[in-house]
Amino acid sequence: MNAIDLERYLHEHIPLSKAMQVSVVSVDTDGVTLRAPLAPNINHQDTVFGGSASAVAILAGWSLLHTRLAATGLTNRLVIHRNTVNYDLPITGPFTARSFIRTAAAWESFVAMLGRKGRARLTVSCILEFDGRSVARFEGGFVALGARAREM
Amino acid sequence: MNAIDLERYLHEHIPLSKAMQVSVVSVDTDGVTLRAPLAPNINHQDTVFGGSASAVAILAGWSLLHTRLAATGLTNRLVIHRNTVNYDLPITGPFTARSFIRTAAAWESFVAMLGRKGRARLTVSCILEFDGRSVARFEGGFVALGARAREM
Repeated sequence: MNAIDLERYLHEHIPLSKAMQVSVVSVDTDGVTLRAPLAPNINHQDTVFGGSASAVAILAGWSLLHTRLAATGLTNRLVIHRNTVNYDLPITGPFTARSFIRTAAAWESFVAMLGRKGRARLTVSCILEFDGRSVARFEGGFVALGARAREM
Repeated sequence: MNAIDLERYLHEHIPLSKAMQVSVVSVDTDGVTLRAPLAPNINHQDTVFGGSASAVAILAGWSLLHTRLAATGLTNRLVIHRNTVNYDLPITGPFTARSFIRTAAAWESFVAMLGRKGRARLTVSCILEFDGRSVARFEGGFVALGARAREM
């Protein structure tokens, strides 16, 4: 799935991504980078609303797992079960969210578990940047359910 | 600030709250309850997008602190610095987010600290419900800055 396809998918299936004017900057196996402007995501203090920052990070994390898992053919459902966000600095303009998986080993054991048990968990990280600085950090725990797994 | 005023304030100053069609169910000193429908918050699995659930919880938490602090006259700025969300069950219809502060003592020491130091932190909790069941839990750490405090 390339950047254009992913952006179309997000806007079609998750209307909030369109309301936030999220665009896909890049998609590769190491990470997905999304971008959003200030105006639709502004708050009463003329900075980015924490809920927008959080939602863009969730989308970046989900997009990375979704695109990587698509290649394995192992999954039919991907659900977020937990996340933590640290808002370190105010964001006063367009910002990006770059997702990544901390270690190759974590990904490999996740895929192995998914193949064996039909269900596995993985933590995806995300760094939000504004004006060349890291402004927020996200950690999201996702559950992938394989084609034969029962629904949660 | 009553429910109508709060809803107007949110929609005017935080456009994402309008995009999510957030309405204010009730405002009192024990908690603020917000509500949002499924359609603008839906995801590719026809359940509520985690980013929407998270954003509505942040709004409920912020609204409680904002309305309670307004009465003290102590603050000029309220910032979220951290949050954790647990997504326990899928949400397949309109949902509510009810914010609260776990103990009266936490509120009292927060107000005392804000008066003395011009800066204080407090954790606000939130329960999301759908169809009479708790479906997600939120904990948000907020920083209040007093009228004389320097900006962060």
